[in-house]
Amino acid sequence: MEILRFDSDYMEGAHPEILRRLSEINFEKNTAYGYDRYCETARQKIREACGVAGAEVYFLSGGTQTNAVAINAFLEPYEGVVAAETGHINVHEAGAIEAGGHKILTLPQHGGKIRADELLALLRKFYSDEAREHMVRPGMVYISHPTEYGTLYSAGELRVLRRICDEYGMALYLDGARLGYGLAATGTDVTLPLIAECCDAFYIGGTKVGALFGEALVLPQAGRIKQMFTRIKRQGALLAKGWLLGLQFDTLFTDGLYYRISAHAVRMAEKLERGFCERGYRMFIKTPTNQKFVILEDEVLRGLSRRVGFCFWEKPDEEHTVVRFATSWATKEENVERLLELI
Amino acid sequence: MEILRFDSDYMEGAHPEILRRLSEINFEKNTAYGYDRYCETARQKIREACGVAGAEVYFLSGGTQTNAVAINAFLEPYEGVVAAETGHINVHEAGAIEAGGHKILTLPQHGGKIRADELLALLRKFYSDEAREHMVRPGMVYISHPTEYGTLYSAGELRVLRRICDEYGMALYLDGARLGYGLAATGTDVTLPLIAECCDAFYIGGTKVGALFGEALVLPQAGRIKQMFTRIKRQGALLAKGWLLGLQFDTLFTDGLYYRISAHAVRMAEKLERGFCERGYRMFIKTPTNQKFVILEDEVLRGLSRRVGFCFWEKPDEEHTVVRFATSWATKEENVERLLELI
Amino acid sequence: MEILRFDSDYMEGAHPEILRRLSEINFEKNTAYGYDRYCETARQKIREACGVAGAEVYFLSGGTQTNAVAINAFLEPYEGVVAAETGHINVHEAGAIEAGGHKILTLPQHGGKIRADELLALLRKFYSDEAREHMVRPGMVYISHPTEYGTLYSAGELRVLRRICDEYGMALYLDGARLGYGLAATGTDVTLPLIAECCDAFYIGGTKVGALFGEALVLPQAGRIKQMFTRIKRQGALLAKGWLLGLQFDTLFTDGLYYRISAHAVRMAEKLERGFCERGYRMFIKTPTNQKFVILEDEVLRGLSRRVGFCFWEKPDEEHTVVRFATSWATKEENVERLLELI
Amino acid sequence: MEILRFDSDYMEGAHPEILRRLSEINFEKNTAYGYDRYCETARQKIREACGVAGAEVYFLSGGTQTNAVAINAFLEPYEGVVAAETGHINVHEAGAIEAGGHKILTLPQHGGKIRADELLALLRKFYSDEAREHMVRPGMVYISHPTEYGTLYSAGELRVLRRICDEYGMALYLDGARLGYGLAATGTDVTLPLIAECCDAFYIGGTKVGALFGEALVLPQAGRIKQMFTRIKRQGALLAKGWLLGLQFDTLFTDGLYYRISAHAVRMAEKLERGFCERGYRMFIKTPTNQKFVILEDEVLRGLSRRVGFCFWEKPDEEHTVVRFATSWATKEENVERLLELI
Repeated sequence: MEILRFDSDYMEGAHPEILRRLSEINFEKNTAYGYDRYCETARQKIREACGVAGAEVYFLSGGTQTNAVAINAFLEPYEGVVAAETGHINVHEAGAIEAGGHKILTLPQHGGKIRADELLALLRKFYSDEAREHMVRPGMVYISHPTEYGTLYSAGELRVLRRICDEYGMALYLDGARLGYGLAATGTDVTLPLIAECCDAFYIGGTKVGALFGEALVLPQAGRIKQMFTRIKRQGALLAKGWLLGLQFDTLFTDGLYYRISAHAVRMAEKLERGFCERGYRMFIKTPTNQKFVILEDEVLRGLSRRVGFCFWEKPDEEHTVVRFATSWATKEENVERLLELI
Repeated sequence: MEILRFDSDYMEGAHPEILRRLSEINFEKNTAYGYDRYCETARQKIREACGVAGAEVYFLSGGTQTNAVAINAFLEPYEGVVAAETGHINVHEAGAIEAGGHKILTLPQHGGKIRADELLALLRKFYSDEAREHMVRPGMVYISHPTEYGTLYSAGELRVLRRICDEYGMALYLDGARLGYGLAATGTDVTLPLIAECCDAFYIGGTKVGALFGEALVLPQAGRIKQMFTRIKRQGALLAKGWLLGLQFDTLFTDGLYYRISAHAVRMAEKLERGFCERGYRMFIKTPTNQKFVILEDEVLRGLSRRVGFCFWEKPDEEHTVVRFATSWATKEENVERLLELI
Repeated sequence: MEILRFDSDYMEGAHPEILRRLSEINFEKNTAYGYDRYCETARQKIREACGVAGAEVYFLSGGTQTNAVAINAFLEPYEGVVAAETGHINVHEAGAIEAGGHKILTLPQHGGKIRADELLALLRKFYSDEAREHMVRPGMVYISHPTEYGTLYSAGELRVLRRICDEYGMALYLDGARLGYGLAATGTDVTLPLIAECCDAFYIGGTKVGALFGEALVLPQAGRIKQMFTRIKRQGALLAKGWLLGLQFDTLFTDGLYYRISAHAVRMAEKLERGFCERGYRMFIKTPTNQKFVILEDEVLRGLSRRVGFCFWEKPDEEHTVVRFATSWATKEENVERLLELI
Repeated sequence: MEILRFDSDYMEGAHPEILRRLSEINFEKNTAYGYDRYCETARQKIREACGVAGAEVYFLSGGTQTNAVAINAFLEPYEGVVAAETGHINVHEAGAIEAGGHKILTLPQHGGKIRADELLALLRKFYSDEAREHMVRPGMVYISHPTEYGTLYSAGELRVLRRICDEYGMALYLDGARLGYGLAATGTDVTLPLIAECCDAFYIGGTKVGALFGEALVLPQAGRIKQMFTRIKRQGALLAKGWLLGLQFDTLFTDGLYYRISAHAVRMAEKLERGFCERGYRMFIKTPTNQKFVILEDEVLRGLSRRVGFCFWEKPDEEHTVVRFATSWATKEENVERLLELI
């Protein structure tokens, strides 16, 4: 009996077009370290998608690595990064940010998001504290979009965070491990150009959105960070065959593939949510992206877990459990339907 | 006019069998972070190839990353790693070892190798120095095999290094970025089991030997390093889709593919060397592996560089230049022949 | 008009006996780096005071430095330290712990203390989390005693923390910047031998308790940490003229001086508290040590601040302020009386 | 039988005037962390001595700490510091610079000094290396003055180093652990204003030149390094009772005391050297400062070592040993005479 797997959005390989092209160019001899033509065209397409002609784009292998490199690049040694207590860097990156010497200054999370008023309160408290020279200066704001809870910031919220960062001399960094699913969400007013306008750095996730692996780190303001190449190398994050990453992003950003496959995942998630709701289940949190958090009675959970893979999230009370179902670019509609038949 | 490229051994993609299998399993849903079945069979095959049933095997994305993780895992904070002054970690890894807090204690290089007597002298000097508690303790010996100069240690030399490390309580680490080409070299008496017997850690290079990307870090003594998984994650080196690496190494270690393709590269290099020598050229250094260092008159060099890609190495005098030609698993014999026709 | 200064407990130099002895031995030629006879006798006296014959004792210059060295020595790279959110290391040490690569895992504070049940909850949550290999392992518990709020743990509480640390394989570390004032508190059942029994490491504060500067780091189990000397040197914490520290602690631990001068500070604080209470003021928090937290009406505060130095703590409401008055080994009783006359 | 001790220049306490003033102000209540009036006047006097009205001056406890803080402040993460292979940071600081993430790029030493031509060669090699983005960028030059061999740079040499640093965008840092003895040397043309003109940072050593402990770090260009206070705190190098350091440097820089006591040490060293030479001994290296390196026959050495303390340096051949005799501000002339009588 096959298990229907909705555990996460990084369980499959890559969009077939990527594999096709990798095979096609397999015996081409390419220059290493990102100086190849695929990286160059990929950069160009990403710049266009972001609407920033001069943006710097770097291709890295994974999310934790990208976060560590980017955050390290912007922070002074005596600075820390503000993040939601549930932020990926604060919980599930094994202390990679601290390994780089930086404290994470936490804010409460609201559906995985931070709130501007609480950020402001933190900053005002810091700057009115007479002992602040003994304290870690907030040098950056880290947000994930979509968040670890599948939620999204609005364009207005991003603009407010930007203004606060400007006011307090901070960088704004957006972790876009699942960015495609955020951009493709129904009703969002956040676009790549808006993100590029608001953020000092962000990454466009590939690993979870159609690539074999890889993330595209975008720095809209060229020249802001010196020696980014060497920084990446120093942190062990420079892939020798950079064109493997370049070609993947070139493919994803050709003819809107990245958006198209993201939109598919969102549609599948919406269908899944609709199905659960029609059957009387409640969502733990409302999300417009590819992650759906369903409150299940523990008895139902036990039955379902023999046939379906999902991710345990938390226990809101003694008799219920919140589980996460994640769709992806590769989710087959028939599998969503089969899941719904099981509940 | 096509350029014949012998610049390096990481200019092509992967052995076609790897691409074939990647396509084959593309829509399988695999567990992340190396807990999939491909990683498991790859580990098993590598253990068998090494002759160490209980060895731990970890798959990482690149060489600098693997070096940084492995060296960090073995060293105490107050320890440093001994390496040849030309060791990759000392020259071309952008300070990644120092970024982890460790000093590199250098020895002279002899064709890229360190010598046991000079290592012993360094250790005796350290342990007879009354101020040694103010100094960085040598905690590990780093060697590359093949070295950056394409040379190899003998089994006897490795055993002596092992004995010295035992005597002084040090770990022995072997950087095997090009290990296949070393194992396939004519006349070498160094085998994987011998390496596993002598070293506390080593990696089997994939990036340069038939894989798209990836290195297999082997720790022969299970349990010696605690929490290796978390260490890897903390250094940003944990690939989400670990099976991409597992499947590649599973393929390379099935039916001797890794050795076969390595032997091809060595044959191509030997042919290239023979051809140069027959035409009166001299080698800068005698190497049995896939890198050949040829002394060219500068005039010849200028002519050749319009048709052939190679790597500038050094200038031994005013009128000559040493250049490196690297073959690889993917080198076509006809291209070696065309190169030889050009000189 | 002289200001009566109760701002903190490190505003004066040293107990006169320390200065006398420093002058006395000024032209003796002593061996550097802690290998002198004063360090040796000081170590011996501290071992006796702790009731642990084999304890290792190191003398360092300041508290942040001592915390950084001690915490770094016990934690593996992938481990973090649990502390109250108000713990000194989490707030006022400028990220020194993170600079060493370690995350601080925070617990709520209760009068500056952590609670065993909340610690247990954190640990159980961690060890039941399937993703814990992606997370920072709690490797140590940090407590301050007295806390930053002047409060104390009981012997029973310390024993419970010890048991929890044993159960979860953690070290227990006690920051004793003001330890003397804790040991001399009325009603405490915590003694140096009890601390040495419960803790893997702790420091006896000198800077705030009678020394010019200096802290004595005690590791009750000899040999547990390798190369402590070199670790200290590596972190820039090795004082060349170690005897300056040894002589100070030798003096403080001769004939009970450390306790005597600490008891004086506590008496002065009690007199101050009594005086405030008799005049109708309320304490913000009940403390048995040398720091007293008084709730003042803002109008009273304004008047007082022209004549008295104290430390702003927090604003509990619009019309009141909590301020801290700190006594020390050097506080003159007449100054406490003059302060009380002013209110 | 008393031993005549010439082991090092940090075996005694402090100039008596320092102890006198420490006692005098012992019960003054001073503001912590360097915001007291003694630090302020000391800074002012040092600024005047350096001829730079706006220089920033920070007081730290020891040399390794000061080096680690200063070097860290100037280097970008991807930069390293160039130093003589015998530089203190490269040999006897237990890897403190690497602990901060930075590589030390070594040059040969010539009597402890680096040579401009060799520095230039290193820089030209780096900047002409096509792989330099994979390498640690030289971001600073570290020199010690006097060097570990007691030698001195000339004003001309310092100016040349400055020009090279300007040309290559590097900082020049001078470790002045024994700076007084350098400034007081016979024939030197290097003055504090010259050093302040040439260096981006340097420290004036107190520990070895009349202070109990303490070094004064001078940054001639105000505002160049942001948040120096927090950087110092983060590295555990902020002394709570900063006035202890301020008062010592205020004393040393009042009425030329620092120069006077330094000149005394140099005179004593000259007398010692003269005595040795008159008795037929040869110096291993010619030094104009307080360290004298004498070549002794091993037989003489054995006899002398029962009556005299000195520092073993190295063995130039089987029958001789080089030993270092160090004088200091506290060396008594009669002890030099007694030493000379013994040989």
